[in-house]
Amino acid sequence: MKIEDLGEIGLIERIVKGFHVDKQIVPIGAGEDDCAVIDIEKAKAGYNYLIVTTDTLQESTHFPAGISPFQMGWSIVAVNLSDIAAMGAHPFAFTIAMGIPAQTETSFVDELVAGIEKCASSYHTVVVGGDLSRSTELILTGTCIGFADNPIRRSGANVGDLICVTGSLGNAALAVKVLKGEMDVPDRVEAVAKRALFQPVPRVKEGILIANSGVATAMIDISDGLALSVAELAKRSNVGAELYEENVPVLSEEIRREGGLELSPRERGELACYYGGDYELLFTIDPRALNNEDLMNRLKREVQMSIIGHVVPREEGIYFKKGETKEMMELKGYQHF
Amino acid sequence: MKIEDLGEIGLIERIVKGFHVDKQIVPIGAGEDDCAVIDIEKAKAGYNYLIVTTDTLQESTHFPAGISPFQMGWSIVAVNLSDIAAMGAHPFAFTIAMGIPAQTETSFVDELVAGIEKCASSYHTVVVGGDLSRSTELILTGTCIGFADNPIRRSGANVGDLICVTGSLGNAALAVKVLKGEMDVPDRVEAVAKRALFQPVPRVKEGILIANSGVATAMIDISDGLALSVAELAKRSNVGAELYEENVPVLSEEIRREGGLELSPRERGELACYYGGDYELLFTIDPRALNNEDLMNRLKREVQMSIIGHVVPREEGIYFKKGETKEMMELKGYQHF
Repeated sequence: MKIEDLGEIGLIERIVKGFHVDKQIVPIGAGEDDCAVIDIEKAKAGYNYLIVTTDTLQESTHFPAGISPFQMGWSIVAVNLSDIAAMGAHPFAFTIAMGIPAQTETSFVDELVAGIEKCASSYHTVVVGGDLSRSTELILTGTCIGFADNPIRRSGANVGDLICVTGSLGNAALAVKVLKGEMDVPDRVEAVAKRALFQPVPRVKEGILIANSGVATAMIDISDGLALSVAELAKRSNVGAELYEENVPVLSEEIRREGGLELSPRERGELACYYGGDYELLFTIDPRALNNEDLMNRLKREVQMSIIGHVVPREEGIYFKKGETKEMMELKGYQHF
Repeated sequence: MKIEDLGEIGLIERIVKGFHVDKQIVPIGAGEDDCAVIDIEKAKAGYNYLIVTTDTLQESTHFPAGISPFQMGWSIVAVNLSDIAAMGAHPFAFTIAMGIPAQTETSFVDELVAGIEKCASSYHTVVVGGDLSRSTELILTGTCIGFADNPIRRSGANVGDLICVTGSLGNAALAVKVLKGEMDVPDRVEAVAKRALFQPVPRVKEGILIANSGVATAMIDISDGLALSVAELAKRSNVGAELYEENVPVLSEEIRREGGLELSPRERGELACYYGGDYELLFTIDPRALNNEDLMNRLKREVQMSIIGHVVPREEGIYFKKGETKEMMELKGYQHF
């Protein structure tokens, strides 16, 4: 059945059944009234700041070939949660505005909704509302609300701070290159890379842990590639950055273990720096943290932290240190315009 | 200059200059970081509930021919504020996700932003964040956050309650008919009708006053025409409605004063009931309110209240009472699918 056969009211009823809220905290949820209603005291759980972010994904611009409706739904939540994570905040509520072509199958919408609910509930986030409109292509806009006491800014990095990332970079980029036919990799590697691209993992738990560590000075998510993210954090903090290329964690252990991938250092650097889609966190920490071995071990274990450089004065720019030589970083990555 | 010549970063910088926040309450605003940050205690001003709504407008579906970029920006805020108003809540913050074609002139974006800021600031709402993406047509998704102590539901109407509306209906519909060439009206009337369609007034102040009156039992905004709004409120409240056709305030006093419009009762009814775009409020009040003359006068004066019917048991359905006859209301209006 196509959604135009179901009609708007039927479609809304069908969609809201997929979203579950705790009525004690969210007395009015999706599809119930003109707005959602949230009990502030119960929701904020003592935090002082309300955190808000919004992000759009649309079929022609953002969704790679082969992504499933479930993964599209997952992704629109994940990209918003990634912004919440980049402040070290706790996500709480999510609204979803969907522009959908009239010829869309209802089963497609069911899967989309399941992906939205699955990603949201995986990170203790409730879908509280939305909007539905007829569109020429699928376009999803999510808005996420969260709470924090100590939001980590992009602008707090100081000269001498260590530059760190969570997890590994270049996994989504590898899938993009495979999809474009620019690279040929073993099936198993392709599958892992595609999962990274199609169903990104927002680093919510990691962001909170980093914020709570007490040593983080700045943070941003790496949605458009490492290069643009380092440049943005450096610009906001009015600093430069020296990066150690060999320390940048390129490709996940799962992919590296699989083997069969012959990459030149240049290719490895490109994957990590100039493509988006990994949604890891880039953050800086006070170098005195190195003296706290317990904390460092915890960060390495629980947020898969790699130290990839340190903050230098702004005049030095942003560069990779290779032995005695400096290679200035190129300012490229994913941009809409 | 086209926005693709300006580039994404330049465009964002240009846009965020148009939005103004009080740093004491919103320490991190639009374009400053991964998320906006709001001081909860200062923002909520003692209220218990956080209110959230989201709404999309896109060029091909929602924007009539002749609307200006300023009015498009105004409208995306107004339609969201109207939902906040329909709960009787106080709007506080707004985020705007914009999908924009690359060939758009920067002057178009400047006007769009000016319209967003003008409507938001007119109703004490701060634009705290947004998102920008390349799109085949202009598509705007707004999300509005507000606060309330006593949100008015759609579901609270009781048999015997009076059914009321704010302002007048059919003004935007008149402009639609003129634009379609289905009606010919004096220039001055056309101008007033088009203003209603192009730059709708969200009834924020009125919604708060109605909620504070203590006599309101249910409320909804009339965005898709009176018929669908009455039907939705009745369905949610599990009641029916008897409407007095002659009491429905059709067309604004400004248009009626202008004269030169010859409308049959059927045409008047159609304008008011089956077209959207007026963004007035439909609400029900306890009939004992009639005994409080001061309150009734205040509602008539300050929210331009008209009493257009009363709530009946569900089994009686929704109908217009004309002398001794009942004419069942048709269930039609603006629907996306």
